[in-house]
Amino acid sequence: MSESLSYASEKSGLPPGSLVHVGEVHEYEQKITVIDYNKSSLNRRTIKTIEELLPYKTTDTITWVIIDGLKDVSIIDAIGQHFDIHGLVLEDILNTHQRPKFEEFDDYLYIVIKAISLAADKFNVEYEQVSLLLLNKFVFTFKEKPDALFEPLLTRLNNDKSHLRNLGTDYLAYVIMDSIVDEYFSLQDTFDELIETVEDELLTDPSAQTLNTIQKIKRELIFLRRSVSPMRELLASIQRCESPLIKDKTKRYFGDIYDHVIRVTEAMESYRDLISGMLDIYLSSVSNKMNETMKVLTVFASIFIPLTFIAGVYGMNFEYMPELKWRWGYPALWMIFIGVSVFLLRFFKKKDWL
Amino acid sequence: MSESLSYASEKSGLPPGSLVHVGEVHEYEQKITVIDYNKSSLNRRTIKTIEELLPYKTTDTITWVIIDGLKDVSIIDAIGQHFDIHGLVLEDILNTHQRPKFEEFDDYLYIVIKAISLAADKFNVEYEQVSLLLLNKFVFTFKEKPDALFEPLLTRLNNDKSHLRNLGTDYLAYVIMDSIVDEYFSLQDTFDELIETVEDELLTDPSAQTLNTIQKIKRELIFLRRSVSPMRELLASIQRCESPLIKDKTKRYFGDIYDHVIRVTEAMESYRDLISGMLDIYLSSVSNKMNETMKVLTVFASIFIPLTFIAGVYGMNFEYMPELKWRWGYPALWMIFIGVSVFLLRFFKKKDWL
Amino acid sequence: MSESLSYASEKSGLPPGSLVHVGEVHEYEQKITVIDYNKSSLNRRTIKTIEELLPYKTTDTITWVIIDGLKDVSIIDAIGQHFDIHGLVLEDILNTHQRPKFEEFDDYLYIVIKAISLAADKFNVEYEQVSLLLLNKFVFTFKEKPDALFEPLLTRLNNDKSHLRNLGTDYLAYVIMDSIVDEYFSLQDTFDELIETVEDELLTDPSAQTLNTIQKIKRELIFLRRSVSPMRELLASIQRCESPLIKDKTKRYFGDIYDHVIRVTEAMESYRDLISGMLDIYLSSVSNKMNETMKVLTVFASIFIPLTFIAGVYGMNFEYMPELKWRWGYPALWMIFIGVSVFLLRFFKKKDWL
Amino acid sequence: MSESLSYASEKSGLPPGSLVHVGEVHEYEQKITVIDYNKSSLNRRTIKTIEELLPYKTTDTITWVIIDGLKDVSIIDAIGQHFDIHGLVLEDILNTHQRPKFEEFDDYLYIVIKAISLAADKFNVEYEQVSLLLLNKFVFTFKEKPDALFEPLLTRLNNDKSHLRNLGTDYLAYVIMDSIVDEYFSLQDTFDELIETVEDELLTDPSAQTLNTIQKIKRELIFLRRSVSPMRELLASIQRCESPLIKDKTKRYFGDIYDHVIRVTEAMESYRDLISGMLDIYLSSVSNKMNETMKVLTVFASIFIPLTFIAGVYGMNFEYMPELKWRWGYPALWMIFIGVSVFLLRFFKKKDWL
Amino acid sequence: MSESLSYASEKSGLPPGSLVHVGEVHEYEQKITVIDYNKSSLNRRTIKTIEELLPYKTTDTITWVIIDGLKDVSIIDAIGQHFDIHGLVLEDILNTHQRPKFEEFDDYLYIVIKAISLAADKFNVEYEQVSLLLLNKFVFTFKEKPDALFEPLLTRLNNDKSHLRNLGTDYLAYVIMDSIVDEYFSLQDTFDELIETVEDELLTDPSAQTLNTIQKIKRELIFLRRSVSPMRELLASIQRCESPLIKDKTKRYFGDIYDHVIRVTEAMESYRDLISGMLDIYLSSVSNKMNETMKVLTVFASIFIPLTFIAGVYGMNFEYMPELKWRWGYPALWMIFIGVSVFLLRFFKKKDWL
Repeated sequence: MSESLSYASEKSGLPPGSLVHVGEVHEYEQKITVIDYNKSSLNRRTIKTIEELLPYKTTDTITWVIIDGLKDVSIIDAIGQHFDIHGLVLEDILNTHQRPKFEEFDDYLYIVIKAISLAADKFNVEYEQVSLLLLNKFVFTFKEKPDALFEPLLTRLNNDKSHLRNLGTDYLAYVIMDSIVDEYFSLQDTFDELIETVEDELLTDPSAQTLNTIQKIKRELIFLRRSVSPMRELLASIQRCESPLIKDKTKRYFGDIYDHVIRVTEAMESYRDLISGMLDIYLSSVSNKMNETMKVLTVFASIFIPLTFIAGVYGMNFEYMPELKWRWGYPALWMIFIGVSVFLLRFFKKKDWL
Repeated sequence: MSESLSYASEKSGLPPGSLVHVGEVHEYEQKITVIDYNKSSLNRRTIKTIEELLPYKTTDTITWVIIDGLKDVSIIDAIGQHFDIHGLVLEDILNTHQRPKFEEFDDYLYIVIKAISLAADKFNVEYEQVSLLLLNKFVFTFKEKPDALFEPLLTRLNNDKSHLRNLGTDYLAYVIMDSIVDEYFSLQDTFDELIETVEDELLTDPSAQTLNTIQKIKRELIFLRRSVSPMRELLASIQRCESPLIKDKTKRYFGDIYDHVIRVTEAMESYRDLISGMLDIYLSSVSNKMNETMKVLTVFASIFIPLTFIAGVYGMNFEYMPELKWRWGYPALWMIFIGVSVFLLRFFKKKDWL
Repeated sequence: MSESLSYASEKSGLPPGSLVHVGEVHEYEQKITVIDYNKSSLNRRTIKTIEELLPYKTTDTITWVIIDGLKDVSIIDAIGQHFDIHGLVLEDILNTHQRPKFEEFDDYLYIVIKAISLAADKFNVEYEQVSLLLLNKFVFTFKEKPDALFEPLLTRLNNDKSHLRNLGTDYLAYVIMDSIVDEYFSLQDTFDELIETVEDELLTDPSAQTLNTIQKIKRELIFLRRSVSPMRELLASIQRCESPLIKDKTKRYFGDIYDHVIRVTEAMESYRDLISGMLDIYLSSVSNKMNETMKVLTVFASIFIPLTFIAGVYGMNFEYMPELKWRWGYPALWMIFIGVSVFLLRFFKKKDWL
Repeated sequence: MSESLSYASEKSGLPPGSLVHVGEVHEYEQKITVIDYNKSSLNRRTIKTIEELLPYKTTDTITWVIIDGLKDVSIIDAIGQHFDIHGLVLEDILNTHQRPKFEEFDDYLYIVIKAISLAADKFNVEYEQVSLLLLNKFVFTFKEKPDALFEPLLTRLNNDKSHLRNLGTDYLAYVIMDSIVDEYFSLQDTFDELIETVEDELLTDPSAQTLNTIQKIKRELIFLRRSVSPMRELLASIQRCESPLIKDKTKRYFGDIYDHVIRVTEAMESYRDLISGMLDIYLSSVSNKMNETMKVLTVFASIFIPLTFIAGVYGMNFEYMPELKWRWGYPALWMIFIGVSVFLLRFFKKKDWL
Repeated sequence: MSESLSYASEKSGLPPGSLVHVGEVHEYEQKITVIDYNKSSLNRRTIKTIEELLPYKTTDTITWVIIDGLKDVSIIDAIGQHFDIHGLVLEDILNTHQRPKFEEFDDYLYIVIKAISLAADKFNVEYEQVSLLLLNKFVFTFKEKPDALFEPLLTRLNNDKSHLRNLGTDYLAYVIMDSIVDEYFSLQDTFDELIETVEDELLTDPSAQTLNTIQKIKRELIFLRRSVSPMRELLASIQRCESPLIKDKTKRYFGDIYDHVIRVTEAMESYRDLISGMLDIYLSSVSNKMNETMKVLTVFASIFIPLTFIAGVYGMNFEYMPELKWRWGYPALWMIFIGVSVFLLRFFKKKDWL
């Protein structure tokens, strides 16, 4: 079942500001990874409590904290206290039903986006909510579960010649978002392939399965749009934002992600249009195929109906039916049978009914 | 019958400003509950006349007045006089066909929203109009009928450690609205379940009942949208409003409700899209099932038609029909009958008509 | 025939500014009623010529002039001259194909709206164009025909305790517009009833008549939208307008009409959505009913077809057909006939084809 | 073939600024008519070369130059040189595939609109592009072909009491545009009639011809919208324009045309909605008629099928069939035949299948 | 396969700023052509390395550099270094999945548009991405493959009387874009022809091929819109842009392209509407044709069914069937056969079923 179709009301009834994890529960151990780096050095370790982060507050390095899993509410709570994060933000981090959004605070920025992954063998989009807190010297990323989403970035960071090592937290945030949005293009490719397959099937051999696939694509597009289209607004807000946390130079990079999101959004729109056309084609081709069958069967029946009538005539018991006495009456009748069949077949063919 | 489909014109013909209750009449006793609180103390009692409220005007505490039921117009009238409320606002409070809206006056703010509840066993959305007057030290809430809508809030207020006890009327208004909007998520869950059920039915066994459910969901979505979508504009207005009655700090909380409303609205849009696809699937699958039946029956008939013809041939009374005299003619003909049937069955099968 | 579908081009070819009555001609006598009032006195009389109005120009009272019927162009012309009204406005007053609009001039405001009435027994919306000239001490209203549209207002005005008697021409204009917009809610009620009836018919016994009603509602909605939706813009303009002719205090009243218009407009949108769903339901239920009939008939035929074949077999004239000689052959065959029928009936029933 | 569907690329490949006539070529002689007037005098003559216009440059009169036909590019070129018109404007005048637009230059304004005419006997909209250059003392109008489009205006100009004679080029431009837009209402009337006819046909006797008419209306509406809807923007631009060439007083007149255009546009939208409903009605009524036929034929066949079976039974050759020996067997069977038919007819009738 | 449906994710996973060619790889040799001109002289040559361009930096002439093919990333890289181009721009140049866009930098402007070409014999739109860097004295154009796209421009440049030779890089950029947009009109013509053909086919003889063409047009329109509609925004941005690189005088020329793009966009919208109507017509006409066939066959069968029944009656073996003994019974029955057929034929004809 799609993530978007569940648990939305779990928290309803609780006071606002209550820290409760709302969303699918992943039975993973929660993990906190800290990557502390500057131009010359990089340090990666796993910590148990948020208090271990406090020493980094006084250093000049950039500290990226990755929290995998949202089960342990106390971690989020501790971050809130030590880094002075607004209660509603903490609540939103824990609720994985957020729509992508960007919120500006005095000392930090809060970004929510949806990472997308695709099971290789089956067409099944999985969404993971990634929350991002961007502070002056810290970047916190919150993920629903431990996965390899950020591995390529970590590899890149390890390389001390990387551009990334010289720049601030805003550029790190950009790189994180860019890597997530890049995954959307993979999804687009999968849609492309799928749609092409369906188009071929429609022309050659449409089946109920084809209809199912069409419906599935339509459904996924509906949910996908809900995750992707708010990104547009989000990135426009980042570009407009006047917080000193995002440098003007970095804004052009966010503009690049903005372009990518628009391209994906427009592709989604095209798919929608293509798909809607396909449903019509499917319905018409299924009904055509059905009609063809019925037509052939009806023609088939129509040929035997007059023959049966003729046979019926000569099965009558009138005393005076001269034909019955004729020597060649029976074979002649067979000639008539064949003649009528051939005539009707030709007639139907000419009328293009066969 | 849906509340939205009734009584709209009841008052037409009356002069503007006439205080008349327009809407479904609920035969409940009207009840006025007063909750007067500050950080240290909370006092809850039921009063009979609005005049009993006047002493609270001079205290420093926050006074929340809950009016259950709109039958007694004189209560509304008295509030209007003692708290200097505009005539049109009083009129709007009494008319339960309002669309959600926000109006700013010098000394008070007026908010109308729709509370939603759902009968547990049946899919039947019930709307209740909640009007909210937000003054400096007073909050008035007007409900159509006495129900447990605010009970969780009252429980929370009772707790003197609650955040709520320290903050002003604007935060109280936020908490009230938040609890109403939270109910929308329950509704969303119900829709989710319903749609999933319908989708399963469509794939396994679509019936006229399925069509009815689809139509019912569609219908409820139409009415729901009328109640939910103006909330977006309403909350945006609250955030933009410059009245000192709403503190800047509280605006971020209203922003949180705004996010919730957008999420619900987008979910509604998705349901609409899903539902419209379903209608097509339903129509196509019903027609497919029908066609399958017709095809099988036609094939069935088509096999017997030539056999009947052959039987007719040997029922003819020609004098010279050598086959009739043959010793094994009759059994041979049975062979032919069986042979023709088998051949046609295979042929139809091969053609994929069976 | 709907008023909106006629005479649009009557005047085409004439120079702009020519005063010609364009629209349906009503064969009524034209009537000019003058209501002159202030807080303490009210005077109502019928006049013949516009010149009789001139003395009122110098009094302090408010003068409401109601012109019923537009046949006599000279009346309009005289108003134009004596009250200095722009030629295009006079032209627009005489052309009853206007869309609702608001125009601001230095000394007066011009408002066009559509009054709606409904023949009680039949569903037939009738539109009447009402033009309104709002001057400092005068209000002119132009109606297409004499009817009781303003009677309730006149009754109210007669009451010297009425709010209305204390306020200016802007409040009078508000009251006039409010009474017209209130009628829209009656129409909404009629639509509600009609749609409910149609929905019931669709579920129980859809007929060609149902389709006609659906189409009729759709059609009326299309024309209604043309009259109602520009009201939104019109009222927004009034609220934004900075003419001293409309006092700030009165604007909130116009805001109330604005809310009403939005409610009606949204209801119309809901009807549209409901109606479009209904057409699909109708088509599918008619086709379902048809298909059911065809299926039963086909099943019926399919049972007799094999029986006829068997009867045909024993009608054959082979010399050696041992069954024909059997003592109980004929009754046995009847057993077979019955057996085959029962078997097929059960089979079809099991397959859910019957 | 519709003008809008041709020649769009004729000029592609040429450098911008090349003066070439793009569009349908009309084989008429090109004609230049000059009307020079002021309050007291009017002078109308036909000239051969643009140079003959130069003396008017120094007079105080208003000079209206009508160019019928665009074949002779040199005329346009000469106007460009003598009156200092931008090359792109000259190019646009010669390309009759323009969409209506308004362009502001320092010394002149450029307006393109589409005149519409309708062949009286057949429903066939013809478009003619009219370009208008509005200078301080000159108005140039360029038409595709010589026709009577401006005759009513010329008659009006001849009358020296006409308002028109006292006012400037901006008012002349208004009058020209007004007369063109007035023609749109004639078109609207034709659509009204056509749609009414089609609606009647749909209810009484829908045929393939009806479908063709529906499709034709739809098609014409699509092209019409392309010519009419940019007019809205065009007229709004004129009203906003701050060029001294258009006096504030005249702007209200352009506002009047704006209203007309909106009315026409809204009517077009209504037609679209009506037409789309009609297509559904047509499809459903054709399919209903078809189904009715099939149903009656199937019922007809279903009555004979059991009769034929019974006749087949008594055609069997069993030796022991007691009924065959009965004296009244044959007439009794006829009773049975009739009885079965009547019973089935009644049954089918009761089931509402007949 | 359409270019728009491929390779979108090729680069996903790479760090931003990596120069990799993303898109269809064309196996052509990369070619760099330099056209250096001023009013009096023009010099055209082919170079191998970007370094050969450096001397032009100090001259006063305008230098147009055409790069055909994007295989060799080092060329792009060199341009980036020598002309100080932003890394993201270089990346975008190499990625041929861009949507048309305009980006403003301090020292240069970056424009991406899509050139369209059409295989002459088959309806197959080919897209080529053209990137344009506009500097003070340089214009770089990047094309995916070597083709004759710019040949007409080069010819025009060779002519030293050309307007083009006197003007700056902004005018050159305009001319390049204009020549690309002009090609859109050719495409429009092809669509016109195609749609006309399809409309004729629909009226005379709709086939599955017609449906395919309709679907193909629809599909191409979807992709085309993705390439054309962002052009509108792009050209509006250019007109609004305040960079000194684009002179005010030249902006009116870009306004001309803007008009062209709007015309093409509106034509596309019309095609969409036309096409969607066609699909309905197709479905209805195919189903009509099918139904006609079925109706004729059913009528045909319905005539023989009663005849067969009558023949069956006289095939019964009752001992007392007086008709069988009649001398003229058999010929009389033939009269009845013929009479019944004629009667039914006439009846069916009258009922309009034949």
